[in-house]
Amino acid sequence: MPTITAPSNPVSSSSSTLAQVYASIADPLQQVESLLRQQLRSQQPYVDELCRYGCLLGGKRLRPILVLLSARACGSIQPDHLTLATVLEMIHTATLVHDDVLDGATTRRHLATVNSRWDNEASILLGDLLFSQAFYLASSLDDVFACRAIGQATNRVCEGELRQKGTRGDFRLTEAEYLSIIEAKTAELCACSCLLGAHYAAADAATIERLERYGRYLGIAFQIADDILDLVGREETTGKSLGTDLQQQKPTLPLIRMLQTVDAITRQRILQMATSDHRDAHQSLRKLLQQSTAIEYAQQQAHHYADQAARQLDGLSMSDAFDHLHRLTRFAVHRVA
Amino acid sequence: MPTITAPSNPVSSSSSTLAQVYASIADPLQQVESLLRQQLRSQQPYVDELCRYGCLLGGKRLRPILVLLSARACGSIQPDHLTLATVLEMIHTATLVHDDVLDGATTRRHLATVNSRWDNEASILLGDLLFSQAFYLASSLDDVFACRAIGQATNRVCEGELRQKGTRGDFRLTEAEYLSIIEAKTAELCACSCLLGAHYAAADAATIERLERYGRYLGIAFQIADDILDLVGREETTGKSLGTDLQQQKPTLPLIRMLQTVDAITRQRILQMATSDHRDAHQSLRKLLQQSTAIEYAQQQAHHYADQAARQLDGLSMSDAFDHLHRLTRFAVHRVA
Repeated sequence: MPTITAPSNPVSSSSSTLAQVYASIADPLQQVESLLRQQLRSQQPYVDELCRYGCLLGGKRLRPILVLLSARACGSIQPDHLTLATVLEMIHTATLVHDDVLDGATTRRHLATVNSRWDNEASILLGDLLFSQAFYLASSLDDVFACRAIGQATNRVCEGELRQKGTRGDFRLTEAEYLSIIEAKTAELCACSCLLGAHYAAADAATIERLERYGRYLGIAFQIADDILDLVGREETTGKSLGTDLQQQKPTLPLIRMLQTVDAITRQRILQMATSDHRDAHQSLRKLLQQSTAIEYAQQQAHHYADQAARQLDGLSMSDAFDHLHRLTRFAVHRVA
Repeated sequence: MPTITAPSNPVSSSSSTLAQVYASIADPLQQVESLLRQQLRSQQPYVDELCRYGCLLGGKRLRPILVLLSARACGSIQPDHLTLATVLEMIHTATLVHDDVLDGATTRRHLATVNSRWDNEASILLGDLLFSQAFYLASSLDDVFACRAIGQATNRVCEGELRQKGTRGDFRLTEAEYLSIIEAKTAELCACSCLLGAHYAAADAATIERLERYGRYLGIAFQIADDILDLVGREETTGKSLGTDLQQQKPTLPLIRMLQTVDAITRQRILQMATSDHRDAHQSLRKLLQQSTAIEYAQQQAHHYADQAARQLDGLSMSDAFDHLHRLTRFAVHRVA
């Protein structure tokens, strides 16, 4: 049985931008970490071991941060916010654990993935338990509002994942379809985090809507940046398996863009590389992408959505929390991990 | 893309006992079927295809039946009962779809499993979507009671599944541990179905508790019978892959009992057969089990729990619904599919 090392501080692995954000909500974030560990305990040693390990894989805690900052931006952080931040991180972790099976990923956050350390079956069941525990925890609130919002967002996340799977190997995927898929699979849960943070801080309807839109745009920017990193990032820095999108024949923005902008012969050559099973072909394709303007285009798009996110904050009353929400829009596109 | 055939009527594939039960709640059960199909729709063709197929795999609709009969036994079937019956069937289907991946099963309800018709990845994501849609639908009720009860039950189901996985290949598993695992993975959701049926029919606390216990005992009886069928059933009758417990080295009651009651040399021989990768060894082990008194013992235990379930109904006011709940205790142990 593998042993569990103490969870590393999320601050240590983040850029200085993110460190400032963490510092501003250090106490409530620590409470979320405690809640997370408290929730994911079991009297059964095998289950307990898996749950404790699962806790370590979440990483940046972006969704808890969005709940807490949105709460503070609209009022103050209440106990319900801590619960909801924990719920959203659990759902996110469940999707990561299942994603790692789909992607055949072996490393995440500098740790072996559950499927690699245990096996696919342990990953499937751990993900299920995380989903279930998250929904159960959400139902500890007095009203059904959070359950509904989280249920709806998770429906869209799952549907987005399924749609992405359905488009594997389909390199005719348009930019609009790609955006619609990442909006569902990634941005929806970010939007929901902001919505819940604001709602449970008793914000007015217009502010809630703005923060929800902020979360959605931020999530899109974040995912585009993530997809760029999968192509041109370094595993030592990101701490996770890269190149899985090409391995899984998942068309992401840089490749979609390059295919749109090249001549028919080059297009054919790229498609041959993309549909090849050989890592060498993927390596050549990565080089081609790096030499093209497609990565730059994808980066511009990430910036565009980060700007859109920032714009949602305009006109809302200024506070430290708003500054940090602004900071996150920069972090989303400038991160290396 | 595989085509979807019209869902077969659950009545046609059931014994006459079950047919009587179905007939008594035919209308509400039909409404649950409609709700189920309505919920599991998507505008995305690939997602829609998977969801519609997933609907066909549920089979007996035992959990909806328990919600509806418990409701009628305590009062009348309300719209909330139809919603909850649908939710519980969706959660059950999600666990089946994921179970089929874990078991490498290729057939269920005379149909190819999702993992066999599509692949493991489609199964993982479809199961996730079913879980999420179930929780979302549960949150459409006015209060959080159902979300809490369903969340708690699903936590136990997932933990039971994980515990079972943790005991694979561990043939020292005791009968008590086996019972505790099947109580979690199967009986909990049956207990929850009865609890919710009674609660939302405004039954008194004592009646709710009795029906919850009825569901729990029934679920245990049902799972023991299921495990016996996996060893001695016929695939043509059950319509699903059998022998998966031995393949997956899952110790179930007949094997646990036989190992407890044989001499050391026979025990060693059985363990060699059980831990072998060869189907021939499993075939020999099945024959040995059939010749022993272990199957009979397991059947007696199933009867014991079915009797316990029936006993919970004693002293409650008699009605047609109670008769049918009684009938289910017989069905649980006499079924062949």
